Amino acid sequence: MKKVMIVMGSAGDEAVAAKAAEVLSAYGIPYEVHVASAHRTPDRAALLASGAREAGFGAIICFAGMAAHLAGAFAARTVLPVIGVPVKGGVLDGSDALLATVQMPSGIPVATVAVNGGANAAHLAAQILGVYDGEVYEKLLEVRQKAADKVLADSERLEEKYRG
Amino acid sequence: MKKVMIVMGSAGDEAVAAKAAEVLSAYGIPYEVHVASAHRTPDRAALLASGAREAGFGAIICFAGMAAHLAGAFAARTVLPVIGVPVKGGVLDGSDALLATVQMPSGIPVATVAVNGGANAAHLAAQILGVYDGEVYEKLLEVRQKAADKVLADSERLEEKYRG
Amino acid sequence: MKKVMIVMGSAGDEAVAAKAAEVLSAYGIPYEVHVASAHRTPDRAALLASGAREAGFGAIICFAGMAAHLAGAFAARTVLPVIGVPVKGGVLDGSDALLATVQMPSGIPVATVAVNGGANAAHLAAQILGVYDGEVYEKLLEVRQKAADKVLADSERLEEKYRG
Amino acid sequence: MKKVMIVMGSAGDEAVAAKAAEVLSAYGIPYEVHVASAHRTPDRAALLASGAREAGFGAIICFAGMAAHLAGAFAARTVLPVIGVPVKGGVLDGSDALLATVQMPSGIPVATVAVNGGANAAHLAAQILGVYDGEVYEKLLEVRQKAADKVLADSERLEEKYRG
Amino acid sequence: MKKVMIVMGSAGDEAVAAKAAEVLSAYGIPYEVHVASAHRTPDRAALLASGAREAGFGAIICFAGMAAHLAGAFAARTVLPVIGVPVKGGVLDGSDALLATVQMPSGIPVATVAVNGGANAAHLAAQILGVYDGEVYEKLLEVRQKAADKVLADSERLEEKYRG
Amino acid sequence: MKKVMIVMGSAGDEAVAAKAAEVLSAYGIPYEVHVASAHRTPDRAALLASGAREAGFGAIICFAGMAAHLAGAFAARTVLPVIGVPVKGGVLDGSDALLATVQMPSGIPVATVAVNGGANAAHLAAQILGVYDGEVYEKLLEVRQKAADKVLADSERLEEKYRG
Amino acid sequence: MKKVMIVMGSAGDEAVAAKAAEVLSAYGIPYEVHVASAHRTPDRAALLASGAREAGFGAIICFAGMAAHLAGAFAARTVLPVIGVPVKGGVLDGSDALLATVQMPSGIPVATVAVNGGANAAHLAAQILGVYDGEVYEKLLEVRQKAADKVLADSERLEEKYRG
Amino acid sequence: MKKVMIVMGSAGDEAVAAKAAEVLSAYGIPYEVHVASAHRTPDRAALLASGAREAGFGAIICFAGMAAHLAGAFAARTVLPVIGVPVKGGVLDGSDALLATVQMPSGIPVATVAVNGGANAAHLAAQILGVYDGEVYEKLLEVRQKAADKVLADSERLEEKYRG
Repeated sequence: MKKVMIVMGSAGDEAVAAKAAEVLSAYGIPYEVHVASAHRTPDRAALLASGAREAGFGAIICFAGMAAHLAGAFAARTVLPVIGVPVKGGVLDGSDALLATVQMPSGIPVATVAVNGGANAAHLAAQILGVYDGEVYEKLLEVRQKAADKVLADSERLEEKYRG
Repeated sequence: MKKVMIVMGSAGDEAVAAKAAEVLSAYGIPYEVHVASAHRTPDRAALLASGAREAGFGAIICFAGMAAHLAGAFAARTVLPVIGVPVKGGVLDGSDALLATVQMPSGIPVATVAVNGGANAAHLAAQILGVYDGEVYEKLLEVRQKAADKVLADSERLEEKYRG
Repeated sequence: MKKVMIVMGSAGDEAVAAKAAEVLSAYGIPYEVHVASAHRTPDRAALLASGAREAGFGAIICFAGMAAHLAGAFAARTVLPVIGVPVKGGVLDGSDALLATVQMPSGIPVATVAVNGGANAAHLAAQILGVYDGEVYEKLLEVRQKAADKVLADSERLEEKYRG
Repeated sequence: MKKVMIVMGSAGDEAVAAKAAEVLSAYGIPYEVHVASAHRTPDRAALLASGAREAGFGAIICFAGMAAHLAGAFAARTVLPVIGVPVKGGVLDGSDALLATVQMPSGIPVATVAVNGGANAAHLAAQILGVYDGEVYEKLLEVRQKAADKVLADSERLEEKYRG
Repeated sequence: MKKVMIVMGSAGDEAVAAKAAEVLSAYGIPYEVHVASAHRTPDRAALLASGAREAGFGAIICFAGMAAHLAGAFAARTVLPVIGVPVKGGVLDGSDALLATVQMPSGIPVATVAVNGGANAAHLAAQILGVYDGEVYEKLLEVRQKAADKVLADSERLEEKYRG
Repeated sequence: MKKVMIVMGSAGDEAVAAKAAEVLSAYGIPYEVHVASAHRTPDRAALLASGAREAGFGAIICFAGMAAHLAGAFAARTVLPVIGVPVKGGVLDGSDALLATVQMPSGIPVATVAVNGGANAAHLAAQILGVYDGEVYEKLLEVRQKAADKVLADSERLEEKYRG
Repeated sequence: MKKVMIVMGSAGDEAVAAKAAEVLSAYGIPYEVHVASAHRTPDRAALLASGAREAGFGAIICFAGMAAHLAGAFAARTVLPVIGVPVKGGVLDGSDALLATVQMPSGIPVATVAVNGGANAAHLAAQILGVYDGEVYEKLLEVRQKAADKVLADSERLEEKYRG
Repeated sequence: MKKVMIVMGSAGDEAVAAKAAEVLSAYGIPYEVHVASAHRTPDRAALLASGAREAGFGAIICFAGMAAHLAGAFAARTVLPVIGVPVKGGVLDGSDALLATVQMPSGIPVATVAVNGGANAAHLAAQILGVYDGEVYEKLLEVRQKAADKVLADSERLEEKYRG
């Protein structure tokens, strides 16, 4: 099974990135975690990106805030799908990071998810692997069913509680 | 080879969606084009989404503007990767569509690209197929090399033109 | 008397939705509360919406945050008036939810109220029922008079307190 | 049948307001058009609002741009549902008018539709009347079916045109 | 000496409005404080505004948040200068109130100050009275000198503390 | 009668500033026009501001775009009321200029009007002079009546044109 | 004399970059122009940046739009001052590029100028060289004097034209 | 060695400005700290700016929030590079200060860094001095290496902690 690489722009992104790791575990998808800054360690970021496919990775998830260049820097060095997670912390609730992640120039896309959307980045990575990997595909259906069941249980509880 | 489904929320999105079709052609990836509104034809959208995997699709690209729900509506009915392209035309240069596309709740991600980023949606779809499909992977390297060559040619021309 | 349906996109919207229930109670308007996600339980949302008129509902209030598609998903399946309440929690103080709720395409309107405006959604639902329902109409005049009296009492208190 | 009042804050809003008139005509709903400024003719606006219910109106649609107070001024003087249409022309593509229309205080809601959403304001007015008026209800189903048919026709045309 | 009228849209604006009262006291300018909602008590707001000049007021300061219409409603009923203070509490740190206050249509200006700028509203009111009132003018020079002295004292303290 | 000073940050603001001149003429209020940049000619701006009261001015209107500092620079050098007009031309439809004009620190207010609100700046200047000047006051009532008459005439015309 | 490097992210930035070249010529400062994309030609960008100091450059000006990473990518590879010019073309009048340029993480600053501020980037580069280079310093005083003279000439012309 | 001047618009900016002092100390660059308001003490600000070069300064760092004019006021009085740090505290997380700092008119640039970017302002000042000052240049390389080492250490720690 292909692995997923999780990269944080700084150790400060750990809390958000941990959600991605957790979700990948739920899918049974192997992953590695790294810290690599597009600005403080550009060579290291370049090496991680350019060697990722050969190292058995099928998708890369990048976490960065403010002028969030990490996902773009990875996308520049690989043709693997790169998922960008804008992280709050700069201005406008992370809208700076959202725009810096999603507004990529033609030819070098970053698959962007919601601000602080660490969990969804992992769900998306699983979907990407699941296109060809039947085992992941089965897991995707299971996880989604559980989410639906959770909504139904919540509804029953609240229908009881609020009776107008 | 897996196909890519291109869906527009309305025929008004044709110009932007045509770029995606053009880029997919350059990769030699087969695709289908549909118009399906999350609001005016919700059943049709649901059917297209839920049957997509079985019909041989590996990724879905959705174009929508304003309160852009199309990608989300598709993502709700399939575990295939859904790529969302926010389209200009509402307010704030398409920022309404960007937020309505990218800020998805946990469990149902949409891989969002730049506002009006039809070309990049197709590049991303190719990257997703290329994770397992070697033929697409080779094409990805080729296309990217051409983009780099174009930059170098531009640079030579402008270095000549501006000599300070 | 027609009922009002209150739907939350997730149980996390309970606090804001509770205000709508409370205001409807003040008007003596019957209501039901449900949790139904446009993304995690799209079929259930579709069923609730399409059966609402026949089940005796006169208006539907939908609460959702981030890429708030719930009101739009309901509006796509019924011609009852759908009131959308954008909920804070994503970015920009709920402006993401506001734009995703209000910027609906032609033909499928959502009657949008203020961010976190649970109370006003219920006032609006009462106004909609009160167009033809004289009993609700009388209640509307009463509730509004009380609000005015509250302002006057506040003014008297503060006129006393601040004397320049 | 109840009438709908269409009010513009200035004659400059005519083009957007004309769409509402056109849609109401399609539903066979009678309407009246007025210009009344919350700021230049506040008494006239107050009179139109406070007399609307008795004069046989079931909903009021207000068009205004910039610091768009018209809908709020009407809502302050009637308990009929007031639909606000923010009009472009100030800054940020009409986001000034959107916020000035939608962010109403508790007790005095304005049912807000998209920026420049004249057509949707009329669709919403029809939905409000259709809660109790069976004739309007039948028309609502018809109009919506036509919108769906239009999408399907567009799709067929574009499926033909783009064959990947 | 002319008086200044301080009006809050709701008692919730008291904390910000109190700063205006305090600054006016420092100038020795008499003032009155009222609560009057443009939406919940529109007649009362109209009366306060239209009678203000005759009652000896030279300027009116209005505090309101969200779709802040209060200053505009006052400006519609008087040709006295109306100063608007947008109050935080809605979305975007009070930018909703800022736009709803400042973006007034031609002919009915509101002199807008910073979000939560209660003190500056009072300084501005004093400047307006000081155009013709020599006593207020002298006070304006004094107050400003004190502000400058405060900056100089702060600088001396911090020059000491940070020596590089 | 007191004069009004009109200052543009650059000759590029002429079109917007001309509206202020025109409105002041309609009130019969004398004015002078200057170009003075807070950044390119700071000494000249300082001189114009500090000498304004003695030279017979009762209010100052400043036009500037982008990082619009002109009104603030004038306000720093006089206790006359300074009216700031944010001018479009930078980003976000002049929201940069709006924020740079209105968000002044405590003690140094700028009376801010709408983006490109040259006419309203002049109306506000007239209101400021009219607090004590009976002649201007009478003119204010006249001008406002004309604006109301214009709205009524527009309404009659459009009531005729649109008959639903 | 140190040289200035002008780098565009794509040939589409030529018009804005040409202004920088023009201003540098006015200062008599030598410069070179390149096109180098942070995403399409990351190695070339890295080489230009890391070799810049040794090649005799004293400052680098980077032009880029959308998710503008170019200045950040250069700043990551050199300790020369890097000036970033956000270019319009994406969304929100270039606010995406502004945030992606200015919100750099600690340790790797980019000296950001106004959106489309090609001229000011060159003025800033000249100021940086002028700290130690007396010849450039003299030129800076000259250029600034000319700008002030231009304002004064404009003022004289408009003072004549508008006489109230 | 040239000195760096650190100026705060008010003593409230001390916490952010202290970071700049700390970073300059790390580089061994001498600095002075002042408080000087563009609005409350405009003459003092003008004097500090116009005398800075002669007094041995090579760069000036200005801290200001809201309608942040301080950096612009300094830039108007010197041709030394002026670095502007927008400070949070007004609206939109300091976006008001960002726009008021960065959107300078042609000819008078401000080198703007991130909101609250006190540290980066000092790094940029060091880079400016380091263009010609070899001692500072060596320090720049050292400081940057340390930042890279920190990232690598963080990565090793988190690679251990998260093993998928």
